[in-house]
Order: sequence, then C-alpha cells, then structure tokens
Amino acid sequence: MFSKAQITETKKLHQKKYRKEYGQFIVEGLKGVQEAIDANAKIVSIFATQAVRHEIKISKDLVIETITETEGQKMTNTETFPGVMAIISIPTDQKFSHGPIVCLDRVSDPGNMGTIIRTADWFGIKNILISEDSVDPYNPKVVRSSMGSIFHTSIIETENLIEALRELKKNKYNIVSLAMEGKDISKIKVENNTVYVFGSESHGVREEILELGDSYSILGHGDAESLNVAVSVGITLNQVFGK
Amino acid sequence: MFSKAQITETKKLHQKKYRKEYGQFIVEGLKGVQEAIDANAKIVSIFATQAVRHEIKISKDLVIETITETEGQKMTNTETFPGVMAIISIPTDQKFSHGPIVCLDRVSDPGNMGTIIRTADWFGIKNILISEDSVDPYNPKVVRSSMGSIFHTSIIETENLIEALRELKKNKYNIVSLAMEGKDISKIKVENNTVYVFGSESHGVREEILELGDSYSILGHGDAESLNVAVSVGITLNQVFGK
Repeated sequence: MFSKAQITETKKLHQKKYRKEYGQFIVEGLKGVQEAIDANAKIVSIFATQAVRHEIKISKDLVIETITETEGQKMTNTETFPGVMAIISIPTDQKFSHGPIVCLDRVSDPGNMGTIIRTADWFGIKNILISEDSVDPYNPKVVRSSMGSIFHTSIIETENLIEALRELKKNKYNIVSLAMEGKDISKIKVENNTVYVFGSESHGVREEILELGDSYSILGHGDAESLNVAVSVGITLNQVFGK
Repeated sequence: MFSKAQITETKKLHQKKYRKEYGQFIVEGLKGVQEAIDANAKIVSIFATQAVRHEIKISKDLVIETITETEGQKMTNTETFPGVMAIISIPTDQKFSHGPIVCLDRVSDPGNMGTIIRTADWFGIKNILISEDSVDPYNPKVVRSSMGSIFHTSIIETENLIEALRELKKNKYNIVSLAMEGKDISKIKVENNTVYVFGSESHGVREEILELGDSYSILGHGDAESLNVAVSVGITLNQVFGK
C-alpha cells in the first residue's frame, strides 16, 4: 500500500520547481519505462499495477512496487494512468559527443520539444542544446512525446545560449540557423561540427545568434504563414542527414 | 448579454456529435478568426470581448457580438479564452482542385492532423482526403493547430478510403504511401496527379492501400523507432515540392 505522503511526493514531480529541487522526473507508460530501463537510466523507483508489471522486462537489480489503479490515477499526469510509471534521476553529467548538435532557442511547447528530440534521435543526432528560456525538457509532455528518445540523447540546458554558441564557434563549430529569410535549405552544407539552431514559432531565432553563422529557409509556395517547428527540424535534418 | 441557453448551445460544438448535427464548428483566437474572415468562410457569428473586438479587420457585412471575459471563459475549449471566437458553417461543397492530394489513413491525434493541414498548405497542396476513422477535422484542436490553414484547403472526409483511392487510381492518380518498408524517399517521383498517403503512428497505412501503388520510407540511422506523422509529412512534401 502506498501512503498518502508517497503519493503527494511523487505528484510534486509534475512541477518544474520540484524536479529541479529533487533532481528527478517521471516517465509514464510501458514503452517509456522500458526505454529507460534498456538505456540504463538512473531509476529511483518503478510503480506498476498487477496487470502491467509482468510486461516489464527487467535486466538488472530493479524492484517494481505494485500499486493499484486508484493509486496510479492519483499520481499520473495523463487522463488515464497507463499502468506503470518510474521516477528517474535527471542526469547531471551530460556531455556532448563529437558530431552535430540540435539547438533550441526559446521553444516553449512541450509536445514540439519532445517530437524534436525524437526526430534528432531518428537521424542519429545525440546532442541537444536548449536555451535558458525554453520549456523544461523533463516536463511530462516532453518526456512522453520524445517516445523514449530522451533516454538516448544528451540534453544540455544552458543558462546563456548566446554565450554557449560563441564558445562552440571558437571551438570550430559552424552555427547554422533556420530562419524566415535565408538561403534555400537544399544548399545546406553537410559538415560534422555544426550546430543547427531552431527558434520559437512566434519569435524565431534571436538576431545575435543569426549573426554567428549562416541562415537557411524552407521554401514554400502556399498560403500558410509558417511551419511547425518540429516539422522544420524534420525537414532540415532529412535534408542534411537523410541520405 | 448572453443567455445561458446561447452559452450551452455554443459549447455543444466542442462535441463531434453536435458539429455533425448542426453542420458548424468553432474557431478561437484572433489569428484563426481573422483567417476565416479573410478566406471568406461562411461565418455564422463572431463573439469578442470589448478589448479584442477592435483588432478584428472586417471586410464585409459581419456583426461582432460583444461578450464578457466570463461568458467567453464559459464557452472556450482552451484554458484561457483568447478574447474572440467564431462559429463557422462546415463546408458541404468541398471539391478537389487539380493537383496532388494529401491523404490520411486513421490519423487520430488532432494536433498532428492540424499540423499536417498547415504543412500541406505551406507547400501549396490544397486537397486533403481523410479516412473514415480519423479524427474529425473540425475538432477544436485540429482547427487550432492548423493555424488558419483549415480555411485555405479543401478537406474531404470519405466513408470508405480504400474505395475512394481505387476510384482515384482509375482516374489516373498515382497512389504513393509512406511506410516503414519502402524505397528511399529521395527516389520519389514528382508527378502532379498523385495521392500521398500517411498512416497512423501505431498502425501505419493499411495493406490494401499499400498495394495500390508504391511505398517509400524516410531513412534514419539513430535509435528512435519511428517519426511523428506530421514530421513525416513535412519531410515527404519538402522532398517532392520543396524545390
């Protein structure tokens, strides 16, 4: 049986403030939890209902605590508790490997951020750099829409993106931004040491960042004013890495 | 002043059943409502708060009814009423123009469907064909995430997609499906009379549809199992129409 206090403590992790304080976040659902286990994420605890617990493949010394549907429903961030959730330690030692970086400047929609992490992972890009004023990558909606890719990628949140990009530029990285006004994206050059910067849908990439390198645009000829940012990331990464 | 009955009637349109019965749907927010006006959609009524009503540019004989924040909040589908909403007649005379068709087979996520309509519109594709078991394209979340593109496109919901596609094939359309196993998407041929079919993330395009034409895949080399369907649509359309 779960105590009321345990439920209250767990639910706190739906709030950014407590995720930062505790250094933990929640992943819900069989696929997400299984990805966390398989990717060797630092798992604090796993709670599952009797019905779902047998479907989890455990490869190491992990204990699954059994909970009831009702207890799960009290702790979930979704409409219907998916039968299993895990508390994971937020990695504090994230490091970028060699290779390209996907960078987000002020992306505030959690569904978009999760989809972008998933898309980067699809194209084999493991380095994600996030600006100070983007949504928290450990927000439950980001975690869910990343479909497990949050456990395959290194995510670094910077406190000053402009400074971080200037530093990368000094270290021979090219800074490539996606913007409304830029060169045709089919002209984009494939180079390993490149940071691909995508901005928020409402404000785009900041001017100071655009100035650090080249800008490219996705050409359309219809009547929509803009593309969704996750769609733009997909198009750009396919253009560069899709062949 | 708005009567309780008016509020109840309006709120009904958040449900598919009543949208079908009344042949009407709701668009909320300044951008969406303005797009409806500019695209000459059949507007039944517009409600706006005192603060927002002056921002709406009306080009024809339309009356804006003033409502309070509280009345708006009672009728909205969003967390915070964006100050303006309009009731629109669902077009009953949608026809496809010449040219390519974007087709959705069992796409159930409203955010994805709206983003797909917006993406098609960006690339100048005005024909959207939707399978019988997809989400209702006049669902508030579809309307919102289409960012006005729902007013620039012809959307046809078929009661039997397989039959509809066989008919199109008889009329010399190519049927091109995006699938997990297919030819490299960079090999896709550009032809005007083509239907591009995208399936649900969980089930993909149905086998009977795949058999009607060629299948293509987006090549990845990372660890994600799949791409978001709206991202796949963006990549495919950019590949064919982006140059």
